[in-house]
Amino acid sequence: MSKSKPTLPRGTRDFGPEISSKRSYIIDKIKSNFTRYGFTQLETPAMENLSTLTGKYGDEGDQLLYKILNSGDYLSKSSEGDYQQGSKHLINKISEKGLRYDLTVPFARFVVMNQHEIAFPFKRFQIQPVWRADRPQKGRYREFYQCDADIIGTKGIWNEVELTLLITDVFNDLNLSDYVIKINHREILFLLATFVGLKGKEVPFCAEIDKLDKIGEDKVIENVLALGADSNQMKEVMNILSLSEIDQLLSKIESIDSENEGVLEVKKYFEQLGKFSEKNIQVELDLSLARGLSYYTGMIYEVKPTSVKMGSICGGGRYDNLTGVFGLEGISGIGISFGLDRIYDVMEELNLFPEKITQRIEVLVVHFSEETHEHGQKIVMDLRSNGIKADLYPTADKIKKQFNYADKIQTPYTLIIGDQEMESGEYMLKNMSTGEQKPMQIDKIIQHLKG
Amino acid sequence: MSKSKPTLPRGTRDFGPEISSKRSYIIDKIKSNFTRYGFTQLETPAMENLSTLTGKYGDEGDQLLYKILNSGDYLSKSSEGDYQQGSKHLINKISEKGLRYDLTVPFARFVVMNQHEIAFPFKRFQIQPVWRADRPQKGRYREFYQCDADIIGTKGIWNEVELTLLITDVFNDLNLSDYVIKINHREILFLLATFVGLKGKEVPFCAEIDKLDKIGEDKVIENVLALGADSNQMKEVMNILSLSEIDQLLSKIESIDSENEGVLEVKKYFEQLGKFSEKNIQVELDLSLARGLSYYTGMIYEVKPTSVKMGSICGGGRYDNLTGVFGLEGISGIGISFGLDRIYDVMEELNLFPEKITQRIEVLVVHFSEETHEHGQKIVMDLRSNGIKADLYPTADKIKKQFNYADKIQTPYTLIIGDQEMESGEYMLKNMSTGEQKPMQIDKIIQHLKG
Repeated sequence: MSKSKPTLPRGTRDFGPEISSKRSYIIDKIKSNFTRYGFTQLETPAMENLSTLTGKYGDEGDQLLYKILNSGDYLSKSSEGDYQQGSKHLINKISEKGLRYDLTVPFARFVVMNQHEIAFPFKRFQIQPVWRADRPQKGRYREFYQCDADIIGTKGIWNEVELTLLITDVFNDLNLSDYVIKINHREILFLLATFVGLKGKEVPFCAEIDKLDKIGEDKVIENVLALGADSNQMKEVMNILSLSEIDQLLSKIESIDSENEGVLEVKKYFEQLGKFSEKNIQVELDLSLARGLSYYTGMIYEVKPTSVKMGSICGGGRYDNLTGVFGLEGISGIGISFGLDRIYDVMEELNLFPEKITQRIEVLVVHFSEETHEHGQKIVMDLRSNGIKADLYPTADKIKKQFNYADKIQTPYTLIIGDQEMESGEYMLKNMSTGEQKPMQIDKIIQHLKG
Repeated sequence: MSKSKPTLPRGTRDFGPEISSKRSYIIDKIKSNFTRYGFTQLETPAMENLSTLTGKYGDEGDQLLYKILNSGDYLSKSSEGDYQQGSKHLINKISEKGLRYDLTVPFARFVVMNQHEIAFPFKRFQIQPVWRADRPQKGRYREFYQCDADIIGTKGIWNEVELTLLITDVFNDLNLSDYVIKINHREILFLLATFVGLKGKEVPFCAEIDKLDKIGEDKVIENVLALGADSNQMKEVMNILSLSEIDQLLSKIESIDSENEGVLEVKKYFEQLGKFSEKNIQVELDLSLARGLSYYTGMIYEVKPTSVKMGSICGGGRYDNLTGVFGLEGISGIGISFGLDRIYDVMEELNLFPEKITQRIEVLVVHFSEETHEHGQKIVMDLRSNGIKADLYPTADKIKKQFNYADKIQTPYTLIIGDQEMESGEYMLKNMSTGEQKPMQIDKIIQHLKG
């Protein structure tokens, strides 16, 4: 039994009252929009079989999986020879389970296991923590939440439009307006790759284009040419990339290939979005966007804050093979994921959390004696049954100590019960920030606090 | 990359749409009562250092901890000699973290780490999963939720009363009335132990008394006598235990020791509870109740369903040393824990879940063509912005397929858009269980669905 001061594992966090209520606020808004849009909740266990998890995230991802030791005498299925062959070999003998790395693979597993019961199109959301044995650094944690929504088993551009409306509604509900939704389409990127003569090298081409923000135009051109691209065609591509007007941009691409699937979808997408102009949808086409190269096959999204320096706070796209890794082909869909931690950081920096949500209670009932304390018990229960977050200082301590406590927990109001108040039925309601106080009957107090 | 059908680890579960929404319903009710009563949320990470977890749950508990392998080359700090010494020895070289086993130890750790910032009395709640490498069986899982509320840093019987009111309000909100709150007091049990001559053997005495339900009176007497109890005194104790009237029971114990702390507290408890008779508080004193023998020191609670055969669905009590294991003495408090899985099972068996909560959506918009589908996009967004859970069948499929889908997801209403409806602005709202349908303007439809 260790008596030394306990610590938290590196890269993990406690969320105390204030942070917890702010996180709940964000999660509640996301969740209520998910359900309003017809998504239903899925929850999967923290632990998955390693056979489910490994091989799905590349070698690097496999390294970051947390592995759980088999219970009991975990070495019983291993031999000294296994030990001698090292960590990588021994793992199969001593561990069968790991912590989930994301919500997509567990979702795919669920779909495969329940494929005959699921009604398609299936809209599921999932809000749960995931774990990665990453090197902890600012803004990167070993346990963090993902908030995912996916629509599977259907194609049609309305899905793409709907998710854009959903993103808009979520951030609108959070009162967060400093962001831009960037979209792109994999088919357009692939068309451009072919155009510069890099057919078959689409993925490395996209990876270079994606770096435009970071390494600049000259370096990108150099790298793409090194892949074997035609220099004149590449110049033309850079011209197209520099265009900011969407119609102009699209017509340039149409002039390369008027039948390109990506262009057709993007046009239809903007057409349908146009119907919701009252919503102030902040979306732009960014041909340099190229996320999730091995996974996404159609439109891709990324939401970036504009006034805060931060990576994307939401992202996603269309994929055409969710469950192929588990042997079930043909399940396509589209999904987005909100990054709770980053949204939290942005909202904190922009001071967007309503003051009320971090109030532990709205009113603390304080008193002067055993008798008034007992009287306060009915009062506090009256307040609570009217939906008011209320507390009674639990013992008949000195009034000074009670007010100290009121200050520490920053209650906006105290309700003071002395002998006189108890007799008259008019209690002193004190506004703790102005110091103002007024005798009021309990009904009036309830009205005042609810109003 | 395994292509065989994936499975879930034994003892873990997926919660699909229906179960998830029922679980959310229970959690939301518990959470809203916790916050109304002034409890604030704490969330701690799934992983804790093994030095935090081990030695806190007894040898048996230590066996049930899930241990996480150190990341990377986890064997690097070990030698062949360590391997040869077996699982128990090697563990310290290859694993530093484990999954939390309950919410109490993480809470205690949090309190110790933040003792200088916390304002006492501190009321925290915590609703999170815990993990135990237990043998899976009916109703026992390896991952399950606990819903805990604790008040620490204060004594005074109002805390005990308040938690009883909280339990009553939670079950009342859940419309669950078939239960009884059993209470007992550790000091009374200890008094009875002394009375029968078992001073110093209080814990084994209580453990025997606790078995009354299971093994019957004769066997309990036999076992207690085997501990060295006086046979006549023990007969007297059994007489007291058989009393059902609380006043009679208490006065019998007072006749043994009128100054007994337990009796004084229990009397005061019932006195204060008496003020809330309108609440129909279903509490009884059960002297044979003896949970958490090594932890609780004062009043203890256990809530049992009465019409469903099931273990306790809520329990807790007063403890006088939450954080001693981490070297911080003198933190006493009282806490209760709701068992989500069992409450779920009871409510399912008594059919207490409102029908509405498992509805994925309230209305599905169906259509006959590309054009009516596009028209439906505005309609579905209108419904949603009025807070109605609504969906649009996402593609212009055959109407039969759309209605099939409506049946499968059991939507209570469909809103049908044909060319005529599109022109007239009166849409067909169809009640899917009665088959009734009526043309209505969108405002009327919104009113109807909201009402």
